[in-house]
Order: sequence, then structure tokens, then C-alpha cells
Amino acid sequence: MNLEKAKRIIEAAREEARQMGIPQNIAVVDEGGNLVAFERMDGAMLVGVNIAQDKAYTAAGTGFPTDALGELSQPGKLAYGVALADRGRVIVFAGGLPIKEGDKLIGGIGVSGGMAPDDKKVAEAGLKALEK
Amino acid sequence: MNLEKAKRIIEAAREEARQMGIPQNIAVVDEGGNLVAFERMDGAMLVGVNIAQDKAYTAAGTGFPTDALGELSQPGKLAYGVALADRGRVIVFAGGLPIKEGDKLIGGIGVSGGMAPDDKKVAEAGLKALEK
Amino acid sequence: MNLEKAKRIIEAAREEARQMGIPQNIAVVDEGGNLVAFERMDGAMLVGVNIAQDKAYTAAGTGFPTDALGELSQPGKLAYGVALADRGRVIVFAGGLPIKEGDKLIGGIGVSGGMAPDDKKVAEAGLKALEK
Amino acid sequence: MNLEKAKRIIEAAREEARQMGIPQNIAVVDEGGNLVAFERMDGAMLVGVNIAQDKAYTAAGTGFPTDALGELSQPGKLAYGVALADRGRVIVFAGGLPIKEGDKLIGGIGVSGGMAPDDKKVAEAGLKALEK
Repeated sequence: MNLEKAKRIIEAAREEARQMGIPQNIAVVDEGGNLVAFERMDGAMLVGVNIAQDKAYTAAGTGFPTDALGELSQPGKLAYGVALADRGRVIVFAGGLPIKEGDKLIGGIGVSGGMAPDDKKVAEAGLKALEK
Repeated sequence: MNLEKAKRIIEAAREEARQMGIPQNIAVVDEGGNLVAFERMDGAMLVGVNIAQDKAYTAAGTGFPTDALGELSQPGKLAYGVALADRGRVIVFAGGLPIKEGDKLIGGIGVSGGMAPDDKKVAEAGLKALEK
Repeated sequence: MNLEKAKRIIEAAREEARQMGIPQNIAVVDEGGNLVAFERMDGAMLVGVNIAQDKAYTAAGTGFPTDALGELSQPGKLAYGVALADRGRVIVFAGGLPIKEGDKLIGGIGVSGGMAPDDKKVAEAGLKALEK
Repeated sequence: MNLEKAKRIIEAAREEARQMGIPQNIAVVDEGGNLVAFERMDGAMLVGVNIAQDKAYTAAGTGFPTDALGELSQPGKLAYGVALADRGRVIVFAGGLPIKEGDKLIGGIGVSGGMAPDDKKVAEAGLKALEK
């Protein structure tokens, strides 16, 4: 990951959020789980400032979309309790996606500000910026 | 939000709590999620000191009543796990309400000390102070 | 400590701050170190929200004014390092005072928003409310 | 503060850092101390991710440049110990500046990645973006 890529990803995500009419918090972290870039669109909900960053960290830190962890962490499932792990930094609802180049994990994007499926749609739009 | 409004809100909430006979912790935060005023009524349960503040933060930080988040965070629902997000500051049971002027979110009130529906009733009484 | 006393203390402190022209964060805790009442005057500096509460806690939790701890915690003195103790809740500059009734420690007041000596002056004005 | 302003500030700061040849972490927070935008230039030192954010928070939360707090917090001075206050979020070396419009405090910028005076120079360059 580098700043130029992170900014392209955020710009594409922001444009999707703008079209959806939902202001979002958008974060990109690198392969070390550390923040590279962050933007809060005007009016984006405040709790999303941290949650977006934690979604990006979770995705980069596991290689899984955050909602896949959500499936695994339901009561009775294999990873029940993972949402409490790593000092509360693991997020288990949609909006965090790993960022890959080929097979290589290079970071994560996290989006928080709408309902979780909206957040995921924005994160997906962000990833498309790397395909161009 | 300002101190004068926050105190009017707390006074109305406290009067409701007094009539219900349940001592409460009552907190008001501003649009940045930061505490403006807090009162613990004599005998109010101690864990409510932090929970009231976190309910107010959650409501101001999301724009939703805390119990609406409770619905969304049940196992299998869209925001399962949100109660663990933002380093434990998100509360998902009743007693936190966003404070608005027209369409504009200006803060949140959080009440903790009774059963959650009692707390919500007190928070609602607090908001009525702004209508006068 | 009870809410009625805490509010009288805060009101007297706030009036002093108003006359000094410095908006303040003012907190009162009980003998258990737990928050009873808090007010942030309009425009009071944001970092003071937590520092005022920690000053009140420090004073109630030690029985000393916070600036007395400051003397003791200078490099080479007996309590050097105390500012790092108790998970960072101990404050060692002026603005926190123990609240006593006769010889009995009943709580603490913490004021943060100006230069430390200003904060102390406001805390002292708060304590005078109990003498009446 | 809004995202457009925050990005203009960061862009001007980044350009200064580029000319100085020192990769930097650059953060802008709003008047509530909450993150609006962040960028880590490629190669910027990792500890600066949090320090830049805390410098911005300190400046917005006090209205002072972080190095002014440094003067006041030397052993024997009025605010000795403030660097440990507010749960470690207060930074007392150069690189954080309050952002004002006229007399009104609207946020803070924090820069971390070089020696403290370099960081301050970059923060100052960021603020100039608002004058245009």
C-alpha cells in the first residue's frame, strides 16, 4: 500500500457514497494494519470515525471481509467471541474488505456511516479503483 | 448544544425520574460527542455513571436511539457486534436519544439507573424541555 | 457528597469563572471517586472535560490538592512518577481540591480550562459554597 | 471544519514536507477533537500515526500550539504533568497547531514524522492554505 493508492481507493469510495447520498467515514490501512489515509465526509456519523478504522484493520489483519467474520461469530459458530478479541479492534459486520494485489494482501479498507450493507457497497467501489 | 440547554434537558429528565421514584444518572453530550453536563441523583446505581455517558455518546454519534441499535445488533441481524465496536462505547439498549433542532443533530442524552425502558422514558422527558 | 451539594459547589465555582472571564470544565466526585455532577461552560477547552474529572478524582482519592502532588512529583522528589500511576488518572497540577466536612473527606472538585492557578482559584470558590 | 478545508490544509502541508524531503503523518481534527482527514506519506515513521492525531487533538482541545504546552510543562512550571493528562492524548512538543477562523477555534492540525521543529514548519504551511 502507498498513499497514492490509498487516496485513489478513498476517492472512488467517496464518489459512490456521494451518489448513494450517505456521508461516510472511509479508512485505508496498510499490510501492517496501520492507517495510511482517512476521510470523514461532512455529516458522517461520529462513531464511524473509529469503526471505519477498525474495519480496515480487521480486514487487513485477517484477510477476510468483516461480514464473513460476522457469519463465523454468531452464537454457536466457530469464532463466536472474536468480536471481543484483540482489545476490541475486531469488527464483525459489513464494511471492511481486504485489499489484495493478485494473491498478496496489501491492506484493508473500512467504511462506516450507513447501514452495514451500504458501507460494504462503498468499500467495494473503493477497491474497483485499483483495477483501473 | 450549550450548557444552558443541557441543564434544562437534565432538569426535565430529573423531574421525571423523581416522579417515577427511580434515581438516575443523566448525561448530555454535544454534537462532537463530548460531555456538556452530567448529574447523578442520590442513590443512582454506580455503573450508570459511565453507561449514561456512553448512551449519550452513542445517540449523538449515530443519530439513532440506542434501542434502535439494539434491534439491529441481535444475532443474525445487520449490525450484530456493534455493541462491541468503538472500544465498547456503543450502547445498544434503551436510554440514549439523539437531540435535534429541526433536522440538525446537536447532541445526545443518556440516562442509566433503572430498567432500560424506564431510562428511555426519562430521556424522552428531557427532550421535551427543548420544545418549550 | 450528594447532588444538591455538588450543584451548589459547581454553581459557586462557575460564578467565579464567569467573573474571571475564563470558561471552565467543573467536576465534583464523591468519596468513592465517582462523578456526581459536571458542567462544561460554553467555550471551555475540550481537553479539560477529562482533566477536570481526573483532578476531582485525584483530590478525592488522595486527600491532597493536586498541586501539592505536583510538588512531591518533581524529579528527585518522593512521589516522582505518581503522575503516571493509577492508569494515568492522577493529575499533578493545580485545579483539584479535596472536599471535606470537618475532618471527613467527602469528595473532590476538579476545574480545568485556564492556566492551572486560575483553575485552582475557581475550585476554591466552589468549596466556599459549603461554608454557608 | 469540513472535509474540503481539511484536505486543502493537508495538501499544503504535504507539499511543504515534500520540499523538505521528510515524509510526514498529517492529521486534521474538527472543533470536537474528532478526526476529519489523515494522510501518511510513504515512508513516514510509524509512531507518528497516533502522535499526529494526538497533536491535532491537543491543539484543538486547548487552543494552544503543542510546543507552548511544552514550555508550561517543564519540571517546576505551572502545567508540569500535563503531558500525562487526558489519558496520554496531550502532546507537549512541536507539531500541533490550533486552526482558527478569525477568533473562532475550528479544529487542529497535527504533524509527526520529523524532528519537532520540522513538524511545526509543515503544520504552519498547512494553515496557510486557509488564508487563500
